[in-house]
Amino acid sequence: MTALWVIVLCGALSIVYAVWAVRSVMASDAGSARMQEISAAVREGAQAYLKRQYTYIGIVGVVIFLLLGVFLGWLVAVGFAIGAVLSGAAGFIGMNVSVRANVRTAQAAIASLAGGLDMAFKAGAITGLLVAGLALLGVTVYFGFLVGTLKMSADSRVVIDALVALGFGASLISIFARLGGGIFTKGADVGGDMVGKVEAGIPEDDPRNPATIADNVGDNVGDCAGMAADLFETYAVTTVATMVLAAIFFRGTDLLMPMMTLPLGIGGLCIITSIIGTFFVKLPANESIMGALYRGFVATALLSLIGIAGVVYALIGFGPLAGVGYSGWALYVCGVVGLAVTGLIVWITEYYTGTDFRPVQTIAKASVTGHGTNIIQGLAVSLESTALPTIVIIAGILITYGLAGLFGIAVGVTTMLALAGFVVALDAFGPVTDNAGGIAEMAGLPKEVRKSTDALDAVGNTTKAVTKGYAIGSAGLGALVLFAAYNEDLKYFIANASAHAYFAGVKLDFALTNPYVVVGLLFGGLLPYLFGAMGMMAVGRAASSIVEEVRRQFHERPGIMQGTEKPDYGRAVDLLTKAAIKEMVIPSLLPVLSPIVVYFAIYVIAGGGAAGKSAAFSAVGAMLLGVIVTGLFVAISMTSGGGAWDNAKKYIEDGHYGGKGSEAHKASVTGDTVGDPYKDTAGPAVNPMIKITNIVALLLLAILAH
Amino acid sequence: MTALWVIVLCGALSIVYAVWAVRSVMASDAGSARMQEISAAVREGAQAYLKRQYTYIGIVGVVIFLLLGVFLGWLVAVGFAIGAVLSGAAGFIGMNVSVRANVRTAQAAIASLAGGLDMAFKAGAITGLLVAGLALLGVTVYFGFLVGTLKMSADSRVVIDALVALGFGASLISIFARLGGGIFTKGADVGGDMVGKVEAGIPEDDPRNPATIADNVGDNVGDCAGMAADLFETYAVTTVATMVLAAIFFRGTDLLMPMMTLPLGIGGLCIITSIIGTFFVKLPANESIMGALYRGFVATALLSLIGIAGVVYALIGFGPLAGVGYSGWALYVCGVVGLAVTGLIVWITEYYTGTDFRPVQTIAKASVTGHGTNIIQGLAVSLESTALPTIVIIAGILITYGLAGLFGIAVGVTTMLALAGFVVALDAFGPVTDNAGGIAEMAGLPKEVRKSTDALDAVGNTTKAVTKGYAIGSAGLGALVLFAAYNEDLKYFIANASAHAYFAGVKLDFALTNPYVVVGLLFGGLLPYLFGAMGMMAVGRAASSIVEEVRRQFHERPGIMQGTEKPDYGRAVDLLTKAAIKEMVIPSLLPVLSPIVVYFAIYVIAGGGAAGKSAAFSAVGAMLLGVIVTGLFVAISMTSGGGAWDNAKKYIEDGHYGGKGSEAHKASVTGDTVGDPYKDTAGPAVNPMIKITNIVALLLLAILAH
Repeated sequence: MTALWVIVLCGALSIVYAVWAVRSVMASDAGSARMQEISAAVREGAQAYLKRQYTYIGIVGVVIFLLLGVFLGWLVAVGFAIGAVLSGAAGFIGMNVSVRANVRTAQAAIASLAGGLDMAFKAGAITGLLVAGLALLGVTVYFGFLVGTLKMSADSRVVIDALVALGFGASLISIFARLGGGIFTKGADVGGDMVGKVEAGIPEDDPRNPATIADNVGDNVGDCAGMAADLFETYAVTTVATMVLAAIFFRGTDLLMPMMTLPLGIGGLCIITSIIGTFFVKLPANESIMGALYRGFVATALLSLIGIAGVVYALIGFGPLAGVGYSGWALYVCGVVGLAVTGLIVWITEYYTGTDFRPVQTIAKASVTGHGTNIIQGLAVSLESTALPTIVIIAGILITYGLAGLFGIAVGVTTMLALAGFVVALDAFGPVTDNAGGIAEMAGLPKEVRKSTDALDAVGNTTKAVTKGYAIGSAGLGALVLFAAYNEDLKYFIANASAHAYFAGVKLDFALTNPYVVVGLLFGGLLPYLFGAMGMMAVGRAASSIVEEVRRQFHERPGIMQGTEKPDYGRAVDLLTKAAIKEMVIPSLLPVLSPIVVYFAIYVIAGGGAAGKSAAFSAVGAMLLGVIVTGLFVAISMTSGGGAWDNAKKYIEDGHYGGKGSEAHKASVTGDTVGDPYKDTAGPAVNPMIKITNIVALLLLAILAH
Repeated sequence: MTALWVIVLCGALSIVYAVWAVRSVMASDAGSARMQEISAAVREGAQAYLKRQYTYIGIVGVVIFLLLGVFLGWLVAVGFAIGAVLSGAAGFIGMNVSVRANVRTAQAAIASLAGGLDMAFKAGAITGLLVAGLALLGVTVYFGFLVGTLKMSADSRVVIDALVALGFGASLISIFARLGGGIFTKGADVGGDMVGKVEAGIPEDDPRNPATIADNVGDNVGDCAGMAADLFETYAVTTVATMVLAAIFFRGTDLLMPMMTLPLGIGGLCIITSIIGTFFVKLPANESIMGALYRGFVATALLSLIGIAGVVYALIGFGPLAGVGYSGWALYVCGVVGLAVTGLIVWITEYYTGTDFRPVQTIAKASVTGHGTNIIQGLAVSLESTALPTIVIIAGILITYGLAGLFGIAVGVTTMLALAGFVVALDAFGPVTDNAGGIAEMAGLPKEVRKSTDALDAVGNTTKAVTKGYAIGSAGLGALVLFAAYNEDLKYFIANASAHAYFAGVKLDFALTNPYVVVGLLFGGLLPYLFGAMGMMAVGRAASSIVEEVRRQFHERPGIMQGTEKPDYGRAVDLLTKAAIKEMVIPSLLPVLSPIVVYFAIYVIAGGGAAGKSAAFSAVGAMLLGVIVTGLFVAISMTSGGGAWDNAKKYIEDGHYGGKGSEAHKASVTGDTVGDPYKDTAGPAVNPMIKITNIVALLLLAILAH
């Protein structure tokens, strides 16, 4: 229990850091009245959206809370509520900081690039550390409460179910936030660009465009709150899944508590290293913003490398472990592999989305021959970009499994995710700088300021892409741990069918030669495709409604284009809010309902009874893996491809192949537009989608066992 | 043996039909001198390309022939040669008919639409029936020779290996033909359109465009020879895999020969019904071309439905079968399910690619707001289009497995493929009409002729899309049968490790909980993505070289645009030939080498010995399924998405959303360009790619066992 208290302390440190950083951000100059006015409009829009989004999620949440309470008991339901509320809180606070830091970043950039960087990164770090800190606190405190205060056994079903439900709570927020935020932000972006840039010929972020505030709101609710919810969920779910595996593997041994504490300990340590890392982010003499960020990242990773050794040693020692064939040292090396996988995926994603490398440059070159060739090359790059990350993930699985079996894989992923605090900081930095640029443009600040914010924004694009690579890589691996938990849980229930009568006579056959497994794989494989299609179509519809609204405003108020009349920014925000909320419901239900529908459908098809149950459990398990396999490829190809298209446009705007205004540039704008829903809506929403399918399957087991 | 003779007779009937139809086509009017000149240029180009392609494949083929001879014996190597030569012959003859029928179709269309349809369909039917007939003859005659003449046991390893090698021979031709042809045709199409339509502003098939002959050549080498090789392969491989399964399941029983003959019998019957079906293709009073084709298709399917019952009854009877839990009647119903799956996939593909339905119309509508939204909607439709076919395939698997286990699935797929003769006829009809339109345009025939050929061409686009849906659906299911053969083969070798020492101590674990299985699934899943990326990039490069060549010709010979000078058509054909041959090599090696590399890599990683072999066999098996799972989605999304883009353009050209020349039309041309390599290069090439991976794995087993 002492260890748990230390971990709670680490989690609390993240809140201390956040409070300090918020004060520091709020204390700085918020700029001119015009700047504050714009920022206020963005803030109001973002708050209005999140308020409505959370209201809807709240309703769904209450229903699920009650269902869980009735079916699995109130302690489990409370776990669900903790996960949901904390995930929502992380996103909400982060977004609120972000919409206040944007204007201050613009103001700081007037004085110096270093000042702008400092402000934007600090805002991002608040979101990042709250994501990791609140997730860690939620899991640790509730686990401590159940085991310490209520004196439950750490491997009891209530504890396991409560932890899984906590993950489910986080997942639920995550899928809604990712999808809703993604539809909002890309509906605004695509729609605003099409009618503003293409039709009316006004630049991005021009205050005459009625969709421009909505676009800035979108950055905050999508890239900031959405990504925060996504990584909160992956963090919580993976930690929980690793604990569940520990509970199963070390049931009734002395290693039970240390092993269940291990993922929490690694998380706690990495919060400290992440906080230290943030202080390494300082603009170097050569003014390389990316260099400054990477310095902080490398510092965090190196400190974690050392610190995790200490955590492993303190909890379980480096020696051989009783009852299993591996040592504490092997588990530590698994953690190191997790860090290496993170580094490699970051590096590969940058290769595929950075302007300095072949992929982006080939897309830029293909733009010279037209829109069609830009898209063909972009799609080719998006397909190709899946290869190396997959090979890294494969290597990670093989090495960690070789070292310490399934639990080794779990420890590797946990370590990978323990860095989430710093990685989310890198990501949440993006929307702040993006907004700062928009405010600088709209407030008519001098050109040099816009140059600074553009430099920050360009780096923000790369970090956003890199974070997405990390998010999907960790989501894929995390989901594998969830699948392992599903399998181990199922084995446990079958072995203890006397206590869990439902599982009597069930025979598990996960072999690929079982047609129900093939069917499950195919059905699971289908989900990311269908889900992606829904996301893309939703953005298309939302963007169309924005196009019509902006056209209407331009038509009805001709003064807008002359700058004599103010556009009605609120209408666009309102339209998108409604569209996003409406459009997120059906796709979100897909992963929630699929495991349940597949289970009962196969149960009936296979003739019911124990044989039907066996077939159904196998099909559902295979479905989970099917979702992971195609989901990984769909998500990586979409996020990397989208990032590459975005930067191919930037590469041309930097003066290559004719620069701004050339035919190549027009083609690259088309590519960027296509990449938008790819990389910011459909692609990233696949992450929570993969995990929610897995965690619902785990809950289904718990309910059937009850 | 009598049954085999009857089947050989059926196969021979296809040749009789082909000879009759060729004579009939050749006897008709070949049009004016100008038309014949154009046709001759297309013919020469196509022949030159195929000659060079076959030379290269020949070299690879001889090497593999020698390797197989040395490792597995010369009877096996001869099997390989038979598969390769017959597949090449089907494509070669079909292509040669096609390049002669094109001009005659244009000429016939001068008199009447019915005449044009008759000519084009007859040409397609020659290819179709030769594909099915030669594949059936190859397998049946060689099987008969080994079992009848050489008196080998039908379930002996040599017979099984020789049959598998025959499938491999067909696969090898298929992947090269599909990829090479696809790169050629789309390089010409995309490149020619970009520089002709977009830059120079001249219509499609304008004789001033130096790439126009190459474009017509491409139709023949890609859509005709490529598709023929693809379906020859699927047909041969699936028949062979079903026979291998029969050899394993009914080893040493009286049912062995009847069961091994069953797939051949179904194939033979369906050749007769397909021939009869061709005579039902007659233009009805309402002039519906699609109606005429569907009438033939429905007639073939209904006759097959009845005929197959006869075949099953004659070979094994309808009663319960000794030693297995199902009856002959159940196997017949599996065949019926195969026919139903074919019908449903055809129907779904038409829904997703036809101008009468929502998906194509939404893409057309999205074109109004620009290039970007056209692509976004097209991608969304392409993702969505995977759902229903997958569900049909899942239902097919569940029903046939429920009826008669794995062998039931195999019989279902075999029946599905038995219709290949008629389906390929529908497809090969497309390039003939496409060419006929080109010749009409280039020869300056009256507008009404072009209207007739355009009507035929539009239907050709739909039938091409529909055939692709059928090809990938059957390829996916066929590959599952191959995977089953891999598993059963492996089990056999392990059980008989005394005779096959390599397999001593090997333990097969195909469970999803085995990390080597997960790794195999991920690696297999990656292959279609990487392969697709390579195909898309190859088309991009080939198209760029055409753009440069055409620009050069326009620049150096200004007389071309004034119509006073003839462009050098041969240069473009030559350039594409070289590009296609060069670009097809590396992607083709990917599926050939992957099973071998994965096997030995995992063997080493897992520590060698029996444990290493066990891990490696599991990983390779999972890889096979991984290829099938993502391959199915990649291929369906690409072929259906590409078809939808194509027809969205046609829908706009028919006068919707502003018609030809509008902004929406320009956006739809971009979509069509993107769809081209999607639907005609990368997507369809995934079919042979899936199967070649599976069949190489089967051969690997045979070599290790030797």
